[in-house]
Amino acid sequence: MTDFTPKREDKFSFGLWTVGWLGRDPFGEATRSPLDPVEAVKRLSDLGAWGVTFHDDDLIPFGSSAAERESIVNRFRGALDETGMTVPMVTTNLFAHPVFKDGALTANDRDVRRFALRKVLRNVELAAELGAKTFVAWGGREGAESGAAKDVRAALDRYREGIDAVAAFVKERGYDLKLALEPKPNEPRGDILLPTVGHALSFINELEHSDIVGVNPEVGHEQMAGLNFAHGIAQALWAGKLFHIDLNGQSSIKYDQDLRFGAGDVRNAFFLVDLLETAGYQGPRHFDFKPPRTEDYEGVWASAAGCMRNYLILKERAAAFRADPRVQEALRASRVDELTTPTLGAGESVADLLGDTDFDVETAAARGMHFERLDQLAMDHLLGVA
Amino acid sequence: MTDFTPKREDKFSFGLWTVGWLGRDPFGEATRSPLDPVEAVKRLSDLGAWGVTFHDDDLIPFGSSAAERESIVNRFRGALDETGMTVPMVTTNLFAHPVFKDGALTANDRDVRRFALRKVLRNVELAAELGAKTFVAWGGREGAESGAAKDVRAALDRYREGIDAVAAFVKERGYDLKLALEPKPNEPRGDILLPTVGHALSFINELEHSDIVGVNPEVGHEQMAGLNFAHGIAQALWAGKLFHIDLNGQSSIKYDQDLRFGAGDVRNAFFLVDLLETAGYQGPRHFDFKPPRTEDYEGVWASAAGCMRNYLILKERAAAFRADPRVQEALRASRVDELTTPTLGAGESVADLLGDTDFDVETAAARGMHFERLDQLAMDHLLGVA
Amino acid sequence: MTDFTPKREDKFSFGLWTVGWLGRDPFGEATRSPLDPVEAVKRLSDLGAWGVTFHDDDLIPFGSSAAERESIVNRFRGALDETGMTVPMVTTNLFAHPVFKDGALTANDRDVRRFALRKVLRNVELAAELGAKTFVAWGGREGAESGAAKDVRAALDRYREGIDAVAAFVKERGYDLKLALEPKPNEPRGDILLPTVGHALSFINELEHSDIVGVNPEVGHEQMAGLNFAHGIAQALWAGKLFHIDLNGQSSIKYDQDLRFGAGDVRNAFFLVDLLETAGYQGPRHFDFKPPRTEDYEGVWASAAGCMRNYLILKERAAAFRADPRVQEALRASRVDELTTPTLGAGESVADLLGDTDFDVETAAARGMHFERLDQLAMDHLLGVA
Amino acid sequence: MTDFTPKREDKFSFGLWTVGWLGRDPFGEATRSPLDPVEAVKRLSDLGAWGVTFHDDDLIPFGSSAAERESIVNRFRGALDETGMTVPMVTTNLFAHPVFKDGALTANDRDVRRFALRKVLRNVELAAELGAKTFVAWGGREGAESGAAKDVRAALDRYREGIDAVAAFVKERGYDLKLALEPKPNEPRGDILLPTVGHALSFINELEHSDIVGVNPEVGHEQMAGLNFAHGIAQALWAGKLFHIDLNGQSSIKYDQDLRFGAGDVRNAFFLVDLLETAGYQGPRHFDFKPPRTEDYEGVWASAAGCMRNYLILKERAAAFRADPRVQEALRASRVDELTTPTLGAGESVADLLGDTDFDVETAAARGMHFERLDQLAMDHLLGVA
Repeated sequence: MTDFTPKREDKFSFGLWTVGWLGRDPFGEATRSPLDPVEAVKRLSDLGAWGVTFHDDDLIPFGSSAAERESIVNRFRGALDETGMTVPMVTTNLFAHPVFKDGALTANDRDVRRFALRKVLRNVELAAELGAKTFVAWGGREGAESGAAKDVRAALDRYREGIDAVAAFVKERGYDLKLALEPKPNEPRGDILLPTVGHALSFINELEHSDIVGVNPEVGHEQMAGLNFAHGIAQALWAGKLFHIDLNGQSSIKYDQDLRFGAGDVRNAFFLVDLLETAGYQGPRHFDFKPPRTEDYEGVWASAAGCMRNYLILKERAAAFRADPRVQEALRASRVDELTTPTLGAGESVADLLGDTDFDVETAAARGMHFERLDQLAMDHLLGVA
Repeated sequence: MTDFTPKREDKFSFGLWTVGWLGRDPFGEATRSPLDPVEAVKRLSDLGAWGVTFHDDDLIPFGSSAAERESIVNRFRGALDETGMTVPMVTTNLFAHPVFKDGALTANDRDVRRFALRKVLRNVELAAELGAKTFVAWGGREGAESGAAKDVRAALDRYREGIDAVAAFVKERGYDLKLALEPKPNEPRGDILLPTVGHALSFINELEHSDIVGVNPEVGHEQMAGLNFAHGIAQALWAGKLFHIDLNGQSSIKYDQDLRFGAGDVRNAFFLVDLLETAGYQGPRHFDFKPPRTEDYEGVWASAAGCMRNYLILKERAAAFRADPRVQEALRASRVDELTTPTLGAGESVADLLGDTDFDVETAAARGMHFERLDQLAMDHLLGVA
Repeated sequence: MTDFTPKREDKFSFGLWTVGWLGRDPFGEATRSPLDPVEAVKRLSDLGAWGVTFHDDDLIPFGSSAAERESIVNRFRGALDETGMTVPMVTTNLFAHPVFKDGALTANDRDVRRFALRKVLRNVELAAELGAKTFVAWGGREGAESGAAKDVRAALDRYREGIDAVAAFVKERGYDLKLALEPKPNEPRGDILLPTVGHALSFINELEHSDIVGVNPEVGHEQMAGLNFAHGIAQALWAGKLFHIDLNGQSSIKYDQDLRFGAGDVRNAFFLVDLLETAGYQGPRHFDFKPPRTEDYEGVWASAAGCMRNYLILKERAAAFRADPRVQEALRASRVDELTTPTLGAGESVADLLGDTDFDVETAAARGMHFERLDQLAMDHLLGVA
Repeated sequence: MTDFTPKREDKFSFGLWTVGWLGRDPFGEATRSPLDPVEAVKRLSDLGAWGVTFHDDDLIPFGSSAAERESIVNRFRGALDETGMTVPMVTTNLFAHPVFKDGALTANDRDVRRFALRKVLRNVELAAELGAKTFVAWGGREGAESGAAKDVRAALDRYREGIDAVAAFVKERGYDLKLALEPKPNEPRGDILLPTVGHALSFINELEHSDIVGVNPEVGHEQMAGLNFAHGIAQALWAGKLFHIDLNGQSSIKYDQDLRFGAGDVRNAFFLVDLLETAGYQGPRHFDFKPPRTEDYEGVWASAAGCMRNYLILKERAAAFRADPRVQEALRASRVDELTTPTLGAGESVADLLGDTDFDVETAAARGMHFERLDQLAMDHLLGVA
């Protein structure tokens, strides 16, 4: 059996807010005491992770002075240097402080929007300073609970203005940084703008600086809308816009669970890893999960280790699935490969197509697709009985 | 009290398949006998509708000869002429025949894709012949139930090829016709490609002929993913892509209910009508619903009449809401109008913004948004007690 | 138009934790400062409410001494006396403190279960002291996120033991108090035990002291499972177990929204009020909602007032619906009344029934149910255009 | 590696309507030609199944004469005799014919209710004749799409009357037959009565003949309400009411998918099999699934074989999980076993409990539950890497 020990080249990264989550939820107080970011870096490094990410406020408490900030960053950089850990991504907290209760870049209040934009821009500087390549923007408060409270078209105008301003700033400064928008359908707002990967991709197309803006989809967020996550990732890849990814688990349509990767819908996770590993995705495998509040820190580290372990197991299984000659035969029997052939022949005109009536519809209708056999082979590989 | 009798200028249209649905569902046989399309046109006209729409097979049975087709179309055109009803939209049935069991434009089988494309192209000719301005494409079978059965990126390639071929054909022929893609998350496939308005909008951006392709969102389809329909329509309008709309009702996340418009989430319907009537949408108000199979034809017509009546009630209520001075004051108190002001001043640079630190975050955080009062005013108008 | 001003006899009650919610959610800090319970009593009284309810910890901070407790209760009682407000219900906070992270009455740790039971018993004494008639038990932490972590059958044994111990204590002390269990499917646990009204009713049947135990269903909790709330209430009434009710609003299947009553699915709310007002329910109309965190206290009181206003509007509308002769005729046309006639005749044996073959199935199958007309009449009454 | 070939003693059974489903769905025509029940029996027997089940109309077309019926039953019995297959369960089709469009035992029309009851009673005779031990009742049409169309309390009265009449008939005739009610939240009705396992269990408690009535839960039906299926089964077992079970798969909250067992949420399936195999459930392992309409009969049989194979794989994995000393240690570390100890000591009074204040809440709160480690061990066993 393969060794499922994570290595640097696996590019596993974790948010400081994941292992550092204190367990405060809508109905309960914190169950864990705060975790020093430096400790987090060291422990994650020991577990085999490659990178650590954060919201500005995870590292530097909201309202810190410039001097405090410098001192914190220096100490944090020391831990990175010592461990060899990287900071592949940074993001901005535009949701925790009450000032963002109606949104940040799309708040009705203009002065809040301006404050939010300043907070983002300063965080872009920090991201660049720490060598991050991706800057994630999750607009968790951009939304509404009631119909008249938000003029959605005006909000999208302001969202575009805000993201374009950030992108322009990145270009102006010459930072080697791309932006990645993170969609979510709801929670904490009743309805959030850009609720799915599709909505975010479409929004990006309306940007002036769309060339450096992509998406950062999260497993659970799409599953909260009942969507097939692997399908959403495929569309993001197809559009050339998968800039980053948030891996975790979710069980059905309910509140945002942020289970460790693999928990929840492990079958979809199998096909997701299969896709990421074969489609040329080169970015981090970033875990955005919450160790359940039932756990102490021993449980936190077990949970973090589980995320990476599950990814590696699924990676091995997906590779074995693709390499299995029976699978290859089954894929052909299901004509999966035939879908890569264009529908029209080379140089064929629509008139030619209309003239091609050599097709027996009933015979074609009677052909079985053999998908059940193929899917059972996938199941066998997933469960290790192939 | 206003008169809620539909008039031609209300532009209400119905699919032949709506009032003509026989009531066959996954667990039960038809409860109604077939409805003659000519009868449907006359009854809908009597009720005050303006247009009628159809899938090719609704009017012309699958497999009809050219002569049969001509005779059927002529008789149908007679009913249109007699009543003054229009055919604002036509769509293609690419889902009922078993040959489409794995999809049409994205079927694994290339010959099925070619057959599907021919079926669409011939239907485009019919649409143009009948003066339709919109050609809807619902890819209800484009999808999968299992992970390896469909190469989603290849499927999107074929989908793009197919839609671009149709759009090119429309342009080549000089038809005054636009295409509108209809998203749906699932049912009849486990997962359907282009599952939401967002995914469809993003896909359209990847087309060669995206200029004549937009979306045809359906109330229930977005609500099957738990999404706010009015928000989705706002984003489609914002992108300039709301080419057509399917109005109906849905209660929560479950199978596709196709309730009459107004049933289901009537509060969202209120804000939807408010949006359509104020945002310059000029297209048909098209009902895509299914009169429950408990009904006989008396119930069918009552249900169809209810769709239009509910639209008109909501239209009156939304107008009264916007006209109410208390509402206007409440909107200002909620700073809804302030969202139309750009975040950056005219000519303001990012450097200027960063230098503007005159903002007291705690004071701003303490400001109430007054959304509950505003939402209760909307409720009062909806319920007619304002 | 009727006056929708609440009166004492409407029996509207509110939890201290509703208007007192500070707006802390999974992603954000409190947006409001704490509300003095005495102030809450006065303001609610001014708005027309009749009762106030609380969790032990809402009134008396966790860990207070006996002396502190007495002083707090006395001051609170003063406010009740001054305003004439009642305390119809009391409930226990078994979810906020980290000690309950794995549950209270069903925690794996026996000492936690014992502590939880003591906390409940002491709170029963307080409830009785303040004259409450209903004691609600919401087991929000009784559940699990992962499959092996909880032995569900053992947990149900302990749940039964706990509830029976409390009920026995109530009887022993001779308190005029009934227990009401509050179901919820998930949040804050991945899956909560007794997830729906049905599961709770079934559990109650297994109790030794089931005679004084019923349910306290909450609108949003059932809707989080996609269930029809009015149907669930009908089954609870049918079983004679509707001891209390939590009124609020929810939009589709997602996190627990706790919108003000009427928001969310207002059509179901209409049929709920219709049912409560005609089925002999005599208990409080209790609002368990959360004023959105966008609101300041002005918004909090507007939201609380909206709950009562919406109930009264729906009550008037439901009464008008039932009184309308067209509705009565439509109900007969739909044979709704016929359902109250037993299927078997008086004294009819099964043999008699089997011998009665005078039934033409096709004729019966062809009869329309006329439900769409009936439902549109309900819509007309809801919207005030009947 | 274990052999996953099904054996008779595994007690696998299939409905005739499963492998015999023709693939007709709400949007498409049949994709397969009818399957002779005799052929179904032989093929299922060859695959290793033990039993076959059916709705009356699956075997004997609706409206057959007595002579036709006898001939069909004789031929079917021949196939049973030849193969050694059993008929462990029979059920009644009360949903397909249009006469049941508003329900059967709870239809508003009394004559329909009487017809339905006769249909059930005659089918009970057939069930007894064929040696079935369980008689399932799925009330798929007992429900409503609109609020006023169904008086739910009257409907529950009629439902009780109907089920009690059937149970009384079974007792009167001395049949060795138990009834099992099958809950479902919706589809084909907008809302179905007895929507979950809990509601059905509670309903059963109100029956006169509840002793011979239990439940037949179906995986996908509970998951359509977002509920944890293994939890529901645990509660049914706890109530002594798990009389039968329908195994299949479902992916999230959407239309009823009826995937083969194991597909959908395979993690919950693992814990389900673990529960069934350790809790003393002796009934059939019955598959109620639909081979996707993409499949020809080769795919149908592959799908049926997959149901049994997945059960056996999960059974082996669950046994290994329970036998693993590391798991046993982890269960103890999570104090799962401690939940079987009563909360009160033997003979301990509530007064004793109240006097036991030797509990340090903060120390207890700090204890980790170690659930993540335990859950990862379950994952390792599921995936075969333990």
